[in-house]
Amino acid sequence: MAKKILLCDPTLRDGNHAVRHQLTRESFAAYCQAAEAANVPVVEVGHGNGLGASSMLVGECLLSDEDIFTISREHLHKSRMAIHLIPGFCTIKKDLTRALELGVDLFRVASHCTEADITDRHIHFVRNSGKEAWGILMMSHMTSPAVLLEEARKMESYGAEAIVIMDSAGAYFPDDVKERISTLVNGLTVPVGFHGHNNLGMSVINSVVAVQEGATIIDGTIRGFGAGAGNTQLEVLVAVFERLGYETGIDLYKILDAADIAEKGFNPVAPSISPLSIVSGLAGVFSGFAKPVAKAAKDYNVDPRDIFFGLGERKAVAGQESLIYEVARDLAKRNENSVEKGQ
Amino acid sequence: MAKKILLCDPTLRDGNHAVRHQLTRESFAAYCQAAEAANVPVVEVGHGNGLGASSMLVGECLLSDEDIFTISREHLHKSRMAIHLIPGFCTIKKDLTRALELGVDLFRVASHCTEADITDRHIHFVRNSGKEAWGILMMSHMTSPAVLLEEARKMESYGAEAIVIMDSAGAYFPDDVKERISTLVNGLTVPVGFHGHNNLGMSVINSVVAVQEGATIIDGTIRGFGAGAGNTQLEVLVAVFERLGYETGIDLYKILDAADIAEKGFNPVAPSISPLSIVSGLAGVFSGFAKPVAKAAKDYNVDPRDIFFGLGERKAVAGQESLIYEVARDLAKRNENSVEKGQ
Repeated sequence: MAKKILLCDPTLRDGNHAVRHQLTRESFAAYCQAAEAANVPVVEVGHGNGLGASSMLVGECLLSDEDIFTISREHLHKSRMAIHLIPGFCTIKKDLTRALELGVDLFRVASHCTEADITDRHIHFVRNSGKEAWGILMMSHMTSPAVLLEEARKMESYGAEAIVIMDSAGAYFPDDVKERISTLVNGLTVPVGFHGHNNLGMSVINSVVAVQEGATIIDGTIRGFGAGAGNTQLEVLVAVFERLGYETGIDLYKILDAADIAEKGFNPVAPSISPLSIVSGLAGVFSGFAKPVAKAAKDYNVDPRDIFFGLGERKAVAGQESLIYEVARDLAKRNENSVEKGQ
Repeated sequence: MAKKILLCDPTLRDGNHAVRHQLTRESFAAYCQAAEAANVPVVEVGHGNGLGASSMLVGECLLSDEDIFTISREHLHKSRMAIHLIPGFCTIKKDLTRALELGVDLFRVASHCTEADITDRHIHFVRNSGKEAWGILMMSHMTSPAVLLEEARKMESYGAEAIVIMDSAGAYFPDDVKERISTLVNGLTVPVGFHGHNNLGMSVINSVVAVQEGATIIDGTIRGFGAGAGNTQLEVLVAVFERLGYETGIDLYKILDAADIAEKGFNPVAPSISPLSIVSGLAGVFSGFAKPVAKAAKDYNVDPRDIFFGLGERKAVAGQESLIYEVARDLAKRNENSVEKGQ
């Protein structure tokens, strides 16, 4: 019997990054219909950074969470509606309660890979409300497989019914995925999943390796729509898993139709691997830093690529944008010293 | 000691497909300079289909072969200038002789994977002229590893100093590459190379697997510029091989600069994996068929994807465009019969 894989589709959430959270009402409706027709089992919707994240700082969403959930729910019947949520961005009392009322089926509660603690109350709240909650570990390349397992076990103890690790910086090589997924599969009792990004052109093979090591949940977005170099391309995953003999339940032709609909309707060009995406993948730094890095590079007359590698050495994570200027200043000083010494 | 890989760059040849062979004089000059600065060892130039191929049928090139070789030679000093040539498109007396006069260093003599015979005279001619000749086997997924080795041995016997297999349809999975490259490496005395396309998102990992199996020559184009879903992305290969401890001799920052120059100067968007690219990869059919397939699908009111799979079953190769209408007619007849039977 063919092994089953649950393909989850965060196009209408991670893909929102690709258009600065400006996906329209029409895009949500059209894509939900197309995904439902293709038999996509889980459709994740929302602001790029998840529930309650719309703000001046990370970008204001064209639509409110309420609007997004209402429109999407209208068009998702067989497909489950999921959301991404990071405690800190969203409150239990207001945001989570409203999401439950508006019919969200699956709550993917996320934290940085070493901060599972913060997901405790949110996961409990969702489970106590009778809905499904998963634990998501972001930027998972920044810690060891052993620590990742510890953090995943915490989420499992809070009630998470699956654990998904994200390669948020697109930094993994297949052997990295192999090591981490096998550690999690062997050490957890709940299903394990993988969410890839394509900075080094490895997202498809990393997803295949994850499944070969026992992962049963894989994330992918249509056309790869997502931040920076983009996510693992969903319709490629459908084709590849079908060829390899895995069962996704998704209709190949209809998911290709969904790709056409998204390509025409969303109106960004499909993500590609830009020079800075490669550097951010190599450095293991979230590609969302690209804009402030470009500005700091200009202000201090240093190479933005050196800033990325400097941030990688300092293990910078989202929210630590101040480090960008620290690194840029250090580089400028070093360059100055080199000039003075006539190097 | 780090293992050395020879990265070959057919951006100015395969990339010409991405702009219908309209790369300008300025693009050739700017990109040759950038590749030379980045220490790219081999730069392949010309019409997308190679020497003498400019024609009404496959597309007229903006520049003549003579112009391309002259401009490129002017800017390539350390980097060797290579050309792709398919006997049948080019003549020895006129085209090859002129290419030698204009300073081409490396002649990559290509045939369909089972037609190595046709390369005999061209390879001999190049070798007798004191220049380097390689044998290139295109659409190499269409035959078995054993036959591929037989064909490669023919080219070796004609004097080919290396054999490169092309995954022209982007149809390979890593295990396919493993099997073929190891067969060639074990059965030949000359170096073996791999040229990937990205229809199923596997081009980077396929190139890595090729090297792990003993290939020492890898092709890649900047930004992946090439027909359909594009080629293996060169600057990603440079980053990935550097990380894996292989030596390419190419400067990472300068090849990223070359990517920026190409992105701005060539003016197509970077290739992406379209729905039809996926189908052509799965079907193992050259994606250059996309346009006539779209037309036939419209004329006969059938699904272009079904035509691609039908062409795959018939093992259609470039030049057999008439098969497209044959397949379309069969599909239309089958649909008609289904309707009549009330299915």
